[in-house]
Amino acid sequence: MDGEGSDRALPVDPGLTRYPPRADARGAVRFVSVDAGDRVEATEAAADPVTPVARLGSRLLRLVLGAPLRATAIAHERMRKLIALPVLSADALSSVAYGPEALLAVLVLGGGAGLALALPVAAVIALLMLAVGISYRQTIRAYPHGGGSYVVAGTNLGRTAGLLAAGGLMTDYVLTVAISVASGLAAVTSAVPSLGPYVLPLGAGLLALLAAANLRGVRQAGTLFAAPTYVFILAIALLVVAGLWQAVADGPSRAPAAPAHATESVGLLLVLRAFASGSTAMTGIETISNAVPAFRPPQARNARTTLTVMVALLIALFAGTMALVAVEDVAPLPGETVLSQLAHGSFGDGPLYAATQAATAAVLLLAANTAFNGFPRLLYLMARDRQAPQLFLHVGDRLAYSHGIVGLGVAAGAVFCAGGGRVDRLIPLYAVGVFLAFTLCQAGMVVHWRRERGAHWRRSIAANTLGGALSGVVFAVAAATKFAAGAWVALAAVAAIVAGSGAIRRHYDAVARAVAPAPEDAPEPAEQLVVVPVAALDRVSLRALAYAAALDRPVLAVHVCGDEAAAERFVADWRALGDRVPLEVVLSPYRAVVVPFVRYVDALHRQRPALTVTVVLGELVVDHPLRRLLHDDREPRMRRGLRSQRGVVVTTVPFHFPG
Amino acid sequence: MDGEGSDRALPVDPGLTRYPPRADARGAVRFVSVDAGDRVEATEAAADPVTPVARLGSRLLRLVLGAPLRATAIAHERMRKLIALPVLSADALSSVAYGPEALLAVLVLGGGAGLALALPVAAVIALLMLAVGISYRQTIRAYPHGGGSYVVAGTNLGRTAGLLAAGGLMTDYVLTVAISVASGLAAVTSAVPSLGPYVLPLGAGLLALLAAANLRGVRQAGTLFAAPTYVFILAIALLVVAGLWQAVADGPSRAPAAPAHATESVGLLLVLRAFASGSTAMTGIETISNAVPAFRPPQARNARTTLTVMVALLIALFAGTMALVAVEDVAPLPGETVLSQLAHGSFGDGPLYAATQAATAAVLLLAANTAFNGFPRLLYLMARDRQAPQLFLHVGDRLAYSHGIVGLGVAAGAVFCAGGGRVDRLIPLYAVGVFLAFTLCQAGMVVHWRRERGAHWRRSIAANTLGGALSGVVFAVAAATKFAAGAWVALAAVAAIVAGSGAIRRHYDAVARAVAPAPEDAPEPAEQLVVVPVAALDRVSLRALAYAAALDRPVLAVHVCGDEAAAERFVADWRALGDRVPLEVVLSPYRAVVVPFVRYVDALHRQRPALTVTVVLGELVVDHPLRRLLHDDREPRMRRGLRSQRGVVVTTVPFHFPG
Repeated sequence: MDGEGSDRALPVDPGLTRYPPRADARGAVRFVSVDAGDRVEATEAAADPVTPVARLGSRLLRLVLGAPLRATAIAHERMRKLIALPVLSADALSSVAYGPEALLAVLVLGGGAGLALALPVAAVIALLMLAVGISYRQTIRAYPHGGGSYVVAGTNLGRTAGLLAAGGLMTDYVLTVAISVASGLAAVTSAVPSLGPYVLPLGAGLLALLAAANLRGVRQAGTLFAAPTYVFILAIALLVVAGLWQAVADGPSRAPAAPAHATESVGLLLVLRAFASGSTAMTGIETISNAVPAFRPPQARNARTTLTVMVALLIALFAGTMALVAVEDVAPLPGETVLSQLAHGSFGDGPLYAATQAATAAVLLLAANTAFNGFPRLLYLMARDRQAPQLFLHVGDRLAYSHGIVGLGVAAGAVFCAGGGRVDRLIPLYAVGVFLAFTLCQAGMVVHWRRERGAHWRRSIAANTLGGALSGVVFAVAAATKFAAGAWVALAAVAAIVAGSGAIRRHYDAVARAVAPAPEDAPEPAEQLVVVPVAALDRVSLRALAYAAALDRPVLAVHVCGDEAAAERFVADWRALGDRVPLEVVLSPYRAVVVPFVRYVDALHRQRPALTVTVVLGELVVDHPLRRLLHDDREPRMRRGLRSQRGVVVTTVPFHFPG
Repeated sequence: MDGEGSDRALPVDPGLTRYPPRADARGAVRFVSVDAGDRVEATEAAADPVTPVARLGSRLLRLVLGAPLRATAIAHERMRKLIALPVLSADALSSVAYGPEALLAVLVLGGGAGLALALPVAAVIALLMLAVGISYRQTIRAYPHGGGSYVVAGTNLGRTAGLLAAGGLMTDYVLTVAISVASGLAAVTSAVPSLGPYVLPLGAGLLALLAAANLRGVRQAGTLFAAPTYVFILAIALLVVAGLWQAVADGPSRAPAAPAHATESVGLLLVLRAFASGSTAMTGIETISNAVPAFRPPQARNARTTLTVMVALLIALFAGTMALVAVEDVAPLPGETVLSQLAHGSFGDGPLYAATQAATAAVLLLAANTAFNGFPRLLYLMARDRQAPQLFLHVGDRLAYSHGIVGLGVAAGAVFCAGGGRVDRLIPLYAVGVFLAFTLCQAGMVVHWRRERGAHWRRSIAANTLGGALSGVVFAVAAATKFAAGAWVALAAVAAIVAGSGAIRRHYDAVARAVAPAPEDAPEPAEQLVVVPVAALDRVSLRALAYAAALDRPVLAVHVCGDEAAAERFVADWRALGDRVPLEVVLSPYRAVVVPFVRYVDALHRQRPALTVTVVLGELVVDHPLRRLLHDDREPRMRRGLRSQRGVVVTTVPFHFPG
């Protein structure tokens, strides 16, 4: 394939068919020739960092994060249903740990009359879960390659709708992590109140741990974190059954708790606020539809089955918990979660209570973990559409999207700390983002079905219209009733994300237009000048001068010095050496060297703007990293200064020490 | 001068005689032609940083540190005697604030019998001051260009002696700063005990302030800090006179303090330890001989006069203080300094007491400031001899040696905090460094006079022999009696400095040998190959390819991609574009690009080690600093990786956006 078009023979064999000519010095063969010598393929050894320091760093990192995977290994990073269910539904199911409590926390303001409305409001939320679940089943069918709200809304409703959905999802991911960690710690401190004062450092530690685990990759996280969800489901089911059984056995003999003191009148507003807060119990319901490609084939069918099981479990756990709350007359307390109160009621203080609290904390951690899978995936999709920085396209060592993971950890940590690690302070920010994304996704599905008109399209439209309308109502209710309490922060974040992503896309578009090949591009710059800064007449500079002279273009040597006496001395030495290249001395009475040189090159260039100036820098490269500190950084500084100059090419000729 | 030797005419005028061709765009003329067009001289505008971010940073810095000075302005940074005296003798005079107290703190361990020996020990120290002072007068005469202990010992006794002196001086400078700040704060907390718990943060703040002030340059510091020394001299003189006057007037009526309880028997060891501790009162006596060039001409005579005045003042203040201590029967207390007790005795609690404490604190700060002048100067001298990193040769914006100033601030801060901000913990480290430098300096002077045999050489030898021998005794006593209490730290620091400086010199020597021009150097590399990594077929890469093709050498384009399918697509596009340059595709199944490319270049180079490989990198340079974050850092990473490869020249062809 190669070389036919070239009129100069290459002095080496690019196919490396004669490589390694002898056994590689380190025993590792770095390249293999494939495809009859047409291609060279890098082995793992070729990706080993070049310098010893970088190599050490990479080994330490690999110790923590595991070995890298080949690109072709991506396909194997799939989850079985039995693993996918706990991993992907932890987010939704764990919402049972704070959703009912958030609902009750509003209703209790209305006293006994308010709490009496808990069951009707919960029933509406359970119906909403069903509707949204059915709605998302349609999404999986339509987007078997993973249609998150961002993709569905963007494809069907346009770019801005997609970005709005993305903004909603991003705030949702950040809050899922922050609230799950806060709620998990609340489960722990309910059981061990002495840990109460350490919630902030504990939360920060957990977030760091989660980020590190996710940098290792999705498969390990899946296997590691599968059990807690099953234990949690079992624990809550047992708790509900045991509690209801006791209530039936004992009859209505249990003394009702002291009736709560009403601080607000029970009106529509209170009910709507309770509804908005309780709706946080369904956050995470969309996770499976985003993660269809993570399933084993047949992916769509497996995902739909898993979604159905998850929604059934969610409704069962939520309804059961609310029923028990009503029977046991439980109200939120400052130091203990509602779930902990229920567990105390059902199990007393024994090991079953402890197990329930532990499982709750574990499943909430797992929910936070789900967000660590989803957030980088969303950023990757956005970066692919050039609506997020390109660095989110980088796949890390273990196919995990490392920048997104780190970014989510930092953002969630900030939100967690800003909320003082308390669930009740963070809940008001939560629902708006989630339901904005739900609404846009379902609306996008409606448009999709109208365009496609595939099998059962009318039924699908009906399902998605119902789901979208209900989600829209929740979004509007949450935004309106919780605005001052925190929803404005989430809405502002969404607006900032939409605006920022738009600006990023416009920048990338402008760059793409600028770098697109154009036929009028001159194939070769017409005029050339080579400039060599010479600090001293040593081999470093002489090597640079020799390289410059060999370029067979006009060469100018430049010496920058502080005063006339030094200039005279340098010129005398220069003449003694042969004076084969013209020399210009630039006096710099302010003793700076780098910037006056850069300015001087600029001044030369202004004389003929069409000129291409090649600056040849001789650079002493000291191999030992500590000894490097003993030498100045003049060359890197010159390179940085020259980088900003148009029409200036910089060539670095290294002189290695030791040679 | 230029161009005669060149066989190619330059396309520009290097003398810039036609520059500026029109009014400079920003109105600032950056270069002027001098010397009939033979030289170009940079104006201040030429030193303005190139990029907007760097420009902003430089403006902010200049706001704090003042405008830069021309190299020719250095000569004007000289001090009059009336300014030099307070600035340069603050170090020595302020020692009166802690020296007597350190002496008493040892003697008090021997109870009343110990304290009775205070006056005889003090008399010996005063004689020592006289001898060392006379000794240093000889040094100024012999080294009018500034002979610090480092220069004198190094010139006359050899390199190792010079480094030992330098090590002693460096520990001395660091401890001077730490102890002066600690002692100054003790003066403040004696008057305002409620500030006691905040000594550490206050000290850190003062150190930062001192460093910032010194980064502004010596002249400003001189004018700003001249007054406190005079006020201090006046305050101590008044305190002594008033106290002695009262004692004479009242007779021996004052009740003697409760006799101190002896915890050690009074023996030779106790006396020697007291002597070593009290000798810290003469630290700083060498400052003037180090700083002769900072005086106005005639420098040597002015410096000698100033030294004589200073030693006289030092002996007077020290003797007066000790006399008053003896008369008033004062002993060290935990919360209040001895000087504060004396001031209370002489002045009561009124404004005179407050003024004395304020002046003491101020002169101690000034003493710390002296070290900020001396330390960078010493490092500069060592760097000039290639015994310290070259970066200490850099002169900062205001002729101050910024790296040394910052280094001293950090080291003194560490020592200050390690000693808990307490003078008594730091004193044992102090004397060894000082007296090691004194001894070596005087010994060097003896050798100097024996070689020179100028006027009065026998008298000079006698003076220096006496001074050196006495200093040597103090050094030995301090090292022996204070070893376990902290002197070992100072000795270890000296040893580390000597060893480190030797290693640095050996490295620079090896580099100098390596870069020295040799006649056998080949003027031009024989074989050349140009390699162009092509990530995508855009104008960035095409411009790099065009530049490479114009070099008129064999060119190889290299594309790194993850899998065969992507490789096929790229090759098809490449062929469509003309296929004028041979292309090699390197498959990188581990998705890394930078390192496999660097390794591939290495593999090519191994085929022919004599080959010079020029890698031409096309680089998208985004001018806006924030937007730069939206692009990856592949080119800088490639450059860093290729830097470590021998025989590889890297050329960066920029493509600017916006263009």
